Amino acid sequence: MFDFKASKACFHLPEGVIYLDGNSLGPPVRATAERLSAVVKEEWGEQLIRAWNTAGWMQRPRATGDRIARLVGAPQGSVVMGDTLSIKVFQALAAGLALNPGRKIILSDNGNFPSDLYMAEGLVSLKENGFQLKVVDPEQVEEAIDETIAVLMLTEVDYRTGRLHDMAKLTAKAHRLGVITVWDLAHSAGAIPVHLEASGADFAVGCTYKYLNGGPGAPAFIYIRPDLADTAQPALAGWLGHAKPFAFDLHYRPGTGIERMRVGTPPILGLAALDASLDIWDQVDMGEIRQRSIVLTELFIRECLTYVPGLELMSPRDPMQRGSQVSLRHPQGYEIMQALIDNGVIGDFRAPDVLRFGFAPLYLDEDDIRKAVAILRKIISQKIWQDPKYQVRNAVT
Amino acid sequence: MFDFKASKACFHLPEGVIYLDGNSLGPPVRATAERLSAVVKEEWGEQLIRAWNTAGWMQRPRATGDRIARLVGAPQGSVVMGDTLSIKVFQALAAGLALNPGRKIILSDNGNFPSDLYMAEGLVSLKENGFQLKVVDPEQVEEAIDETIAVLMLTEVDYRTGRLHDMAKLTAKAHRLGVITVWDLAHSAGAIPVHLEASGADFAVGCTYKYLNGGPGAPAFIYIRPDLADTAQPALAGWLGHAKPFAFDLHYRPGTGIERMRVGTPPILGLAALDASLDIWDQVDMGEIRQRSIVLTELFIRECLTYVPGLELMSPRDPMQRGSQVSLRHPQGYEIMQALIDNGVIGDFRAPDVLRFGFAPLYLDEDDIRKAVAILRKIISQKIWQDPKYQVRNAVT
Repeated sequence: MFDFKASKACFHLPEGVIYLDGNSLGPPVRATAERLSAVVKEEWGEQLIRAWNTAGWMQRPRATGDRIARLVGAPQGSVVMGDTLSIKVFQALAAGLALNPGRKIILSDNGNFPSDLYMAEGLVSLKENGFQLKVVDPEQVEEAIDETIAVLMLTEVDYRTGRLHDMAKLTAKAHRLGVITVWDLAHSAGAIPVHLEASGADFAVGCTYKYLNGGPGAPAFIYIRPDLADTAQPALAGWLGHAKPFAFDLHYRPGTGIERMRVGTPPILGLAALDASLDIWDQVDMGEIRQRSIVLTELFIRECLTYVPGLELMSPRDPMQRGSQVSLRHPQGYEIMQALIDNGVIGDFRAPDVLRFGFAPLYLDEDDIRKAVAILRKIISQKIWQDPKYQVRNAVT
Repeated sequence: MFDFKASKACFHLPEGVIYLDGNSLGPPVRATAERLSAVVKEEWGEQLIRAWNTAGWMQRPRATGDRIARLVGAPQGSVVMGDTLSIKVFQALAAGLALNPGRKIILSDNGNFPSDLYMAEGLVSLKENGFQLKVVDPEQVEEAIDETIAVLMLTEVDYRTGRLHDMAKLTAKAHRLGVITVWDLAHSAGAIPVHLEASGADFAVGCTYKYLNGGPGAPAFIYIRPDLADTAQPALAGWLGHAKPFAFDLHYRPGTGIERMRVGTPPILGLAALDASLDIWDQVDMGEIRQRSIVLTELFIRECLTYVPGLELMSPRDPMQRGSQVSLRHPQGYEIMQALIDNGVIGDFRAPDVLRFGFAPLYLDEDDIRKAVAILRKIISQKIWQDPKYQVRNAVT
């Protein structure tokens, strides 16, 4: 049994803050700053260029990828780190289209994170020749999968509502109809058990700055089903995805397996920060995390719906249908969230009226949830949100 | 007059090492570790998600870009940071092709860094429809520019030899013939004065982990000539390049000017490390750096050719024709470089027989150069390189 009490002490969180926004940016672990300092001084500063060999930097994207793989049900050697999630989406989509010649449609839904849709738009506009992106409602996805679709691109957990797509079922239907699948795990990795290998998913991508505590702009990851990895074309064909980067050939020749999805020089400082938090994640059983996450989200929903007037649950009521977040609607959502943050409960607001809360069992417990709901209740019942200081909208939210 | 003696003390370099490989990976400044620690604890840890506003993270790619702009002769507001150099090459090329409809050829040379050629290969293979990459010898570039070329993509300083392309002259010819130019400044930024605005270059890209000391895998930069920036299509259309990222529109609408070249969430830790070294670079005059660089490279070449037998100069002899590096050939180049490194002089080796040395006036002086040549001389004249321990080839070099 994982010691959740002990893990809470490993995180750096401000005094008096209950942090329900780890689904936007997870907090650092206490070891992160020192780890970075050691990498800068002992590796970069002392070993300089030699550190690519002596400190294992060159292999780091695969080594860290293996740590992520364990958390998302992928075999060792099938995940590599690098770039941002949007870039990895582009690579997966381009490779998926190339694996399905003769078909020209990418299917997605309007619950997908917009950047995924934008990257798909950018890709089809580059390719021209009738390639297109088709976007349907989340509920229509299953029906819309047919033999005209080249690639199905979905985010497993809806960033707005927390609603879960059924990865195994949709992948199975896609495969029956010859469709390649690309799964975005931005709100899944570290939040819920993911079974990439068992589901047969062809590609998966994700970020590490949310539930995995890698830090702002932490490196993304990409997975390819091992039997496809040696035929997938990386599209963004950078030198570190080349079979022999240091031969400096004039022509690109993709590396073996998932290595080919590497592009440029890996972000060693970002990977070091991520590795510091993965020291905790290595000891985690995702089943236990899920169990604790359900306890916390159920408690939060129950307390909110019982004690706080005027809130509407936007997330699915059934915990098996949602990830590790809860979204609530309130007409004064924006002002309420400002008041919450000002009173030590950090969640986030999504226009027009959504209060969004993420639940990370590694540093949250029942006490935190009860306290957070009590503060929310007070803000709404005493109309604290009416204070003029909560009415000013920030440039960035 | 910049105080080069004082700047040397700002860098973290191992005791007894003369570092002539800052053109591969620049060393950290002493302030870097502490800066990262402060960002992790005070910004990320204490402000959490709020730091995107309160610590200025969201604007950081432009703010840091402005610091780079000053060093490469670009106006404020025309440079943005993010991703790796290869990704930025792809964006510039794709945008260049879109700005030149009807033409289908990217022209480059075989002295370009291979990753740039690979990215171009990946792009034309995505686009199909007869798009192609044409690669000529560096000496043939000028003649090969004609009205069939859509985009001319060149690296200003040859990574093997240090040979300089004439940016102003080639850009002028390109423009007379309706060709868009993409300049890779990997070995220029921080090495030599660059005059992006004055030369009329359309796009420029570069990395910051070489002469600019940003750290392993530090963020890249991209420049667009301001009058083109509002029409260039970013191709990799990520949410942070959207006109209103937090509106979460379903369709992509590019942001204003260079902002549109942003893709995903910016790498804040990598940018923080870079910002620490830019605190020194902000005080630098690139003309003074160039003057010192010429003094150092001239001294190195003169001493090598006078005192060290068997070396052939591969770089141009005229300092005006080369960047801030010197490449020398020797049949036992690999073994000699291993022996050099083992004796405290770090340069790098490029197959088949090239000893490559980079010169960074911020932390190198005449004493270092003389000592380095004395060690090189001893290794060659006393055949120290014949020691069996220098014969073993590393997996990664």
